[in-house]
Amino acid sequence: MDAGLLSPVRAGTAAEAATDDAACLQAMLDVESALAAAQAELGTVPRSAALAIRAAARAEHFDLAELARAGRESANPVVPLVRMLAGRVGASDPDAAHFVHQGSTSQDVLDTALMLVAARTLAPILADLDRTADALAALARRHRDTPAAARTLGQHAVPTTFGLRVAGWLQGVLDARERLRRVRATGLPVQLGGSAGTMAGYLEYALLHAPAAAPAVRERLAGLVAEGLGLAEPLVPWHTVRTPLADLAAALGLTGAALGTIAADVQLLSRTETGELHEPAATGRGSSSAMPHKRNPALSALIRSAAHQLPALVSTLAHAAVTDDERPAGAWHAEWQPLRECLRLAGGAAATAAELTGGLVVHADRMRANLALTGGLVASERLAAALSPEFGRGPAKALVTRACARAATEGRSLADVLAGTPELSGRISPARLGELCDPERYTGAAAHLVDRILDRHATLRAAPAASAPTTPAPHRARPAKEKTSR
Amino acid sequence: MDAGLLSPVRAGTAAEAATDDAACLQAMLDVESALAAAQAELGTVPRSAALAIRAAARAEHFDLAELARAGRESANPVVPLVRMLAGRVGASDPDAAHFVHQGSTSQDVLDTALMLVAARTLAPILADLDRTADALAALARRHRDTPAAARTLGQHAVPTTFGLRVAGWLQGVLDARERLRRVRATGLPVQLGGSAGTMAGYLEYALLHAPAAAPAVRERLAGLVAEGLGLAEPLVPWHTVRTPLADLAAALGLTGAALGTIAADVQLLSRTETGELHEPAATGRGSSSAMPHKRNPALSALIRSAAHQLPALVSTLAHAAVTDDERPAGAWHAEWQPLRECLRLAGGAAATAAELTGGLVVHADRMRANLALTGGLVASERLAAALSPEFGRGPAKALVTRACARAATEGRSLADVLAGTPELSGRISPARLGELCDPERYTGAAAHLVDRILDRHATLRAAPAASAPTTPAPHRARPAKEKTSR
Amino acid sequence: MDAGLLSPVRAGTAAEAATDDAACLQAMLDVESALAAAQAELGTVPRSAALAIRAAARAEHFDLAELARAGRESANPVVPLVRMLAGRVGASDPDAAHFVHQGSTSQDVLDTALMLVAARTLAPILADLDRTADALAALARRHRDTPAAARTLGQHAVPTTFGLRVAGWLQGVLDARERLRRVRATGLPVQLGGSAGTMAGYLEYALLHAPAAAPAVRERLAGLVAEGLGLAEPLVPWHTVRTPLADLAAALGLTGAALGTIAADVQLLSRTETGELHEPAATGRGSSSAMPHKRNPALSALIRSAAHQLPALVSTLAHAAVTDDERPAGAWHAEWQPLRECLRLAGGAAATAAELTGGLVVHADRMRANLALTGGLVASERLAAALSPEFGRGPAKALVTRACARAATEGRSLADVLAGTPELSGRISPARLGELCDPERYTGAAAHLVDRILDRHATLRAAPAASAPTTPAPHRARPAKEKTSR
Amino acid sequence: MDAGLLSPVRAGTAAEAATDDAACLQAMLDVESALAAAQAELGTVPRSAALAIRAAARAEHFDLAELARAGRESANPVVPLVRMLAGRVGASDPDAAHFVHQGSTSQDVLDTALMLVAARTLAPILADLDRTADALAALARRHRDTPAAARTLGQHAVPTTFGLRVAGWLQGVLDARERLRRVRATGLPVQLGGSAGTMAGYLEYALLHAPAAAPAVRERLAGLVAEGLGLAEPLVPWHTVRTPLADLAAALGLTGAALGTIAADVQLLSRTETGELHEPAATGRGSSSAMPHKRNPALSALIRSAAHQLPALVSTLAHAAVTDDERPAGAWHAEWQPLRECLRLAGGAAATAAELTGGLVVHADRMRANLALTGGLVASERLAAALSPEFGRGPAKALVTRACARAATEGRSLADVLAGTPELSGRISPARLGELCDPERYTGAAAHLVDRILDRHATLRAAPAASAPTTPAPHRARPAKEKTSR
Repeated sequence: MDAGLLSPVRAGTAAEAATDDAACLQAMLDVESALAAAQAELGTVPRSAALAIRAAARAEHFDLAELARAGRESANPVVPLVRMLAGRVGASDPDAAHFVHQGSTSQDVLDTALMLVAARTLAPILADLDRTADALAALARRHRDTPAAARTLGQHAVPTTFGLRVAGWLQGVLDARERLRRVRATGLPVQLGGSAGTMAGYLEYALLHAPAAAPAVRERLAGLVAEGLGLAEPLVPWHTVRTPLADLAAALGLTGAALGTIAADVQLLSRTETGELHEPAATGRGSSSAMPHKRNPALSALIRSAAHQLPALVSTLAHAAVTDDERPAGAWHAEWQPLRECLRLAGGAAATAAELTGGLVVHADRMRANLALTGGLVASERLAAALSPEFGRGPAKALVTRACARAATEGRSLADVLAGTPELSGRISPARLGELCDPERYTGAAAHLVDRILDRHATLRAAPAASAPTTPAPHRARPAKEKTSR
Repeated sequence: MDAGLLSPVRAGTAAEAATDDAACLQAMLDVESALAAAQAELGTVPRSAALAIRAAARAEHFDLAELARAGRESANPVVPLVRMLAGRVGASDPDAAHFVHQGSTSQDVLDTALMLVAARTLAPILADLDRTADALAALARRHRDTPAAARTLGQHAVPTTFGLRVAGWLQGVLDARERLRRVRATGLPVQLGGSAGTMAGYLEYALLHAPAAAPAVRERLAGLVAEGLGLAEPLVPWHTVRTPLADLAAALGLTGAALGTIAADVQLLSRTETGELHEPAATGRGSSSAMPHKRNPALSALIRSAAHQLPALVSTLAHAAVTDDERPAGAWHAEWQPLRECLRLAGGAAATAAELTGGLVVHADRMRANLALTGGLVASERLAAALSPEFGRGPAKALVTRACARAATEGRSLADVLAGTPELSGRISPARLGELCDPERYTGAAAHLVDRILDRHATLRAAPAASAPTTPAPHRARPAKEKTSR
Repeated sequence: MDAGLLSPVRAGTAAEAATDDAACLQAMLDVESALAAAQAELGTVPRSAALAIRAAARAEHFDLAELARAGRESANPVVPLVRMLAGRVGASDPDAAHFVHQGSTSQDVLDTALMLVAARTLAPILADLDRTADALAALARRHRDTPAAARTLGQHAVPTTFGLRVAGWLQGVLDARERLRRVRATGLPVQLGGSAGTMAGYLEYALLHAPAAAPAVRERLAGLVAEGLGLAEPLVPWHTVRTPLADLAAALGLTGAALGTIAADVQLLSRTETGELHEPAATGRGSSSAMPHKRNPALSALIRSAAHQLPALVSTLAHAAVTDDERPAGAWHAEWQPLRECLRLAGGAAATAAELTGGLVVHADRMRANLALTGGLVASERLAAALSPEFGRGPAKALVTRACARAATEGRSLADVLAGTPELSGRISPARLGELCDPERYTGAAAHLVDRILDRHATLRAAPAASAPTTPAPHRARPAKEKTSR
Repeated sequence: MDAGLLSPVRAGTAAEAATDDAACLQAMLDVESALAAAQAELGTVPRSAALAIRAAARAEHFDLAELARAGRESANPVVPLVRMLAGRVGASDPDAAHFVHQGSTSQDVLDTALMLVAARTLAPILADLDRTADALAALARRHRDTPAAARTLGQHAVPTTFGLRVAGWLQGVLDARERLRRVRATGLPVQLGGSAGTMAGYLEYALLHAPAAAPAVRERLAGLVAEGLGLAEPLVPWHTVRTPLADLAAALGLTGAALGTIAADVQLLSRTETGELHEPAATGRGSSSAMPHKRNPALSALIRSAAHQLPALVSTLAHAAVTDDERPAGAWHAEWQPLRECLRLAGGAAATAAELTGGLVVHADRMRANLALTGGLVASERLAAALSPEFGRGPAKALVTRACARAATEGRSLADVLAGTPELSGRISPARLGELCDPERYTGAAAHLVDRILDRHATLRAAPAASAPTTPAPHRARPAKEKTSR
């Protein structure tokens, strides 16, 4: 039993449900069922057998723990599953049992099942990223011109706007979304190679049962299975060419980075001394087991916990992509759990990010107050620029550096110190100095850059939702038309 | 539900049972119970309250899924657990409820619980490593003098013995065992720092309930909890100093490497063309869903799958050891799942390795036959040495290199080619040449080195088993004497 | 000095030269030069100053070691570099010195320089991948029908062709090539945000020197710099959105996997007992310091050493992509060395793979001989299929399984054992049995699948070479026309 | 040329110098020299040859770039190095050339050389950790009672002392130091197995040159080489048992975590809004290329950049510890560069940490001011405890939670709000309330815990410096006595 006790970021989320052992088992059964249906379509399996297999292929009929243990003997669960499924099919239709898993191999079933699990998990992940992106777009629009301190290496640098900060978060989310959608649309192929990628088993049974169908098996079987499962059709079997997993893992890793960045910023900006943001309030949210006053940034802690774990899991998949022979003895087996965990963590993080960004509390007043904290030092870059025509750039910077140090030491404002600087006397009016030192007037192209990202968001969201193949939910009834076409 | 469907290496193993959500929950409850007992011992909690807490602290009373979901609000499961436990305690003893988790904090409970889970999982891991080591020692002894080809970069290099190969495996296992035992004995401390590592909460309640006990709380509370749980007592709280996790993870990583090396060798040596080893036979073991003749090295594939996954998980823990403030917002939360997974994978690998090494089938005849495959080339190093006094080392090596190339090209034995080499004519007898080219006479100090490792094994196994503190199993009845001493 | 002594995979390669400290320094200088040129184009820097900066911006004028050490003070080398460059410019043109790095920030220079280094390194990597792909295509074509044993989990599984094995390698290489080319074409953007991503500095100097140019600076400065350097133009600054590095790292990681898979297979297939392949012979290649007969697969060992190192480096970049504030204090600084190392390792592996695949020695006779080793067991899947119409699939598989076990135990061929099996007596002719047991007749769609991959290769190679922007080599003279257009 | 331009954390440090290619080459030469000396001691090499080898074994005589390139042919640099060294020895003493590398193998030389490089790099690392520890101990002592806010998940939690924070840093540094010293003392063994770990080559030459010495070669050769190099003597060769690298890597990883934690805290505590710490001031230190007022925490950024990179490098070494055969074709070759990089990064971080902690500027007044920021909320835990005898723990906590929310909303102090709370009216004096809400009176056992860590530091520092074998510096003249004893 793994209910997420040690991984609260995904406890109770859709991604968790879509990836648990029962869901993975159902996906394997769906693959066996879709394979039989496609073979029936091509005439190498009786239609009645395909129907009997579909009827039997329901996860709730199998003992997961027994199956998992039995999987040790063959190092994968498909071998015992095929045996159990054939038994179950045979109980209602003895002839049909012979057609379970016909011509297939464990890797075809397991790889395709994992692609199916990925497709089913990407649906809520993409939906949550859309919710997150929409929330961020609204925030960026609202705070397009809200001045705030930009910080580099933890120190006030120059002014920016909170809107630009949020737009940066949005940019990351859109990047991740784009890659995930690309993977979903074309990057999740079925696996259909037979024992060693030659399709020999599938063809042999075709030759036995319907010799004329053999060319169609070679040309169309993978496509039919792909259509049945809402997955992509591969050019060739990919038993030892793990690009689909690498692309998927990379996109999930980028998702973690995009969301983790939001969380890291929320934490920094909600520190007690800074107080520019608060996580959405909820009864009991963020409470401590000991400290009554505590309101912890719990959601961002959850998101960061996922972002912390993803890179190493992605690297395990990258490592396992170095295969050997026609099926490696260990590298393949090492992919399953990390892939599932990547999906769960990214999914949990996305669900949590949608909640976080949807209710983020923004204290624009604190942003302004913090921006004013340094008495204008945060505009020092501008001062150095402004004085450079007169003094040259190097000397101007040196002059301002000295003034900054003095302002910091004496606790005075930069404008005040500069006003008393002999070199400037008579050369620049106090009014002009005050204007130059006003951080809110030095936000550069921030608003403009926000607009560019908002445009990108609007364009992407306006695009037709589904060039992606639709994945049937487990046991989705196939549309009537398709049925009659058979 | 995670029954190991995607991680057959640990499906149904003791390590799996010792680390599942229920086991982790029980460990947290055991910590709350041990804390209350220790506080009762010191007089800052009523003894009756401690007993009521112990009675209520049973995992089966709690709804894991609800608890896991509730943990999202506080980013950890301890906050809702304390609430639920207090509710449960209060149902039978309203006064006792106030003493649940007194002065404590989530991290004290969760960190200590994970140490407890680790301790409980190390027991079967160490037992399996001992079984593995014993099996390897027996194999190394039996094959101390069985000649075999040593291979470097996949090519026959020089002769060795199979015993030395096995002794090398044993050496790795003993290294891992040594490190795990060190961690178990002194490296799994309780965590007891209160909200931010100052112990202030524990002390405050002591001052309220039994002011005279405050110094004892400071000096003895951690020790008493450690004693109650069979864990080590830390010098100070380690909220932000994650050495215990780093040491544990490193030792588990080394375990994976030691066992993974065995598995990699078993796979190479049982390749169809090589056939020097076979995994233990068992009905159905290693069968394929498609190929009737298949007898896959399933156990070593399982072990390698674990060895593949461990390094990245260890790196996640290493990364999370960079903490900040008095409790980081994400790094801490990222430790729990990877640590559990490390324990499971190492535990699954150890159980599988015990099975693999206990029944390994050795084909000494194939080893000899393979050693003879190159017609003596495998002894070329010796030839070059033997001829060096006469020719000088460089020229001797060059002469033998040419002879080797010729032997390989012409399909003749090295002795034969050398016998016909003009430079050697009259300088070395065919008998001497044959002797020098006989691989079985060129195994160097192999037997001697085997003995050294067997001595190490014998010494370690003779050492008293338990300098390690004993961990009570969940709900172990405490010995009578301790009970009456209260 | 790092000449690759500990990293021979890239010693002396083009990727090494394109990524060493001098190349990185030159890239930074090229960025400063391109920035000044673009600003001159827009009128915010005097054209003479831009020319003076270009003249001074040559790596050989700077003391690398001094610069590297000075970089410690600011945690990056750009701060001292700007100072030194300005000094050098000022020595020849005092006025021009004021225009070095105008409005810019360290991250703009360093990020853009790394993109430039990546672009310059991708050129030889892509060329080497093309050479590798061409060599593999030729091999796959030549061995399209060469029968060989397919192996899964190290055991003979079913027959395949060597051509399909090679086509699988090619498929992986084409995947990597596709992703690297996509990154090269659109994924390597210049960085141009100023101190904190608002472009404020660039705009401020525009307002001072050429107020009318400010809108053009905002809209066109990044594009002009991109054009000058042959890089992509970003939508917005990406100081904290590290998608470009993530995409690049993922593509390099996939390259390592594709090449590492080839190397792993070459090693397995060239093992002494297997002998199906040999690395290209070369004088001294693969020799040992001790064993005269040794011919080690040195090239594949080099490639695997790179494939081993890449995943973790990629994960470091993924981890660093979780940024904070407007520039993180450590995560950014942690990207530089791993990114460079990824480029070097992938580049070294690609150069080595081109050499390996270009001269691979194939022993088709050994492939046939190995395929025959099991006396037809390798065709057991086919037998089970062939007998299934008569016996049902389960019983047929069981019957063949028993026959396989007997064949293995008694050292007879499968056809022979089956011919004597009572259940089959009279049902199947010995000739038919022999045919069914002939591995060379059971290669399924192998040849067809090879053709599909060869088609993909031909299509990709026929595509116009350069949709990618061209990167000027360091100091490339700009075309005359551009010069006069200014 | 790699001068650290992209890795400023180690630019110009002792660790950099001790690990560069020249240092690695010298270490290999030192191994060849020590081997010959040990063989001379045992009588299997002429003493004059050993002296000639020592004289020739100087890195400056070799062309590093040529050697690195030549290493590609054999996948390691030792093969060409032996050839070049023999050539050089032979130029002065033709007979001696035959005794270079006698009976040895590339892995013996390279592994031992890396251990030697590690030993030589651990010296400055340990010295810098001692400097760091001493600086931290002084800081912890000075600020043992300086009150400060403890923060968990970025929020003020309860009071602590700055001394305890620093003592936590010290605890981590002492843990790392302890592990590094253990590795240094016993964990860096020479490698001496010959071609495949049987020592056959060493023995064969002994039998040729001095048959009576063979048993001594077996028993004493490794010990003599170890003594000559100041390394440990292994029980057996460890070609495929990579425990020494795993232990070293783990200890270096822990060093990164300990130092990275200090850096992360320094960054958080020196944020503009917090201002409790500043990095040591130095001219130009922390300056920006653009912003005159900037004083970046450059040293902690450097340290964090190292801490970011170490975990993945450690995982590469853990992965490579899964070996196969008698020498793996790629895993071994993948260790060298990551090991060197781990040493460099840990060494750079240690040098930087010594500088950082030695000059850290502490603003105790800001700590006090920040602690007061929340108007007593930071003491809410204490209030809840204090009220629990009267109200019960749950109700007390609830009452305080409500008061805290009100205080936060209304901007009043907690004491003030509580004073006006009806439930408390007449039950607790305002004075007592004020006392309870005073954060400085609620630091628990902080001072006491600081003392425990200071005691540990004092004990460790008082221990005799060198149970570790002393490593000779390159070319250290051996003491006269030893010379004459031969």
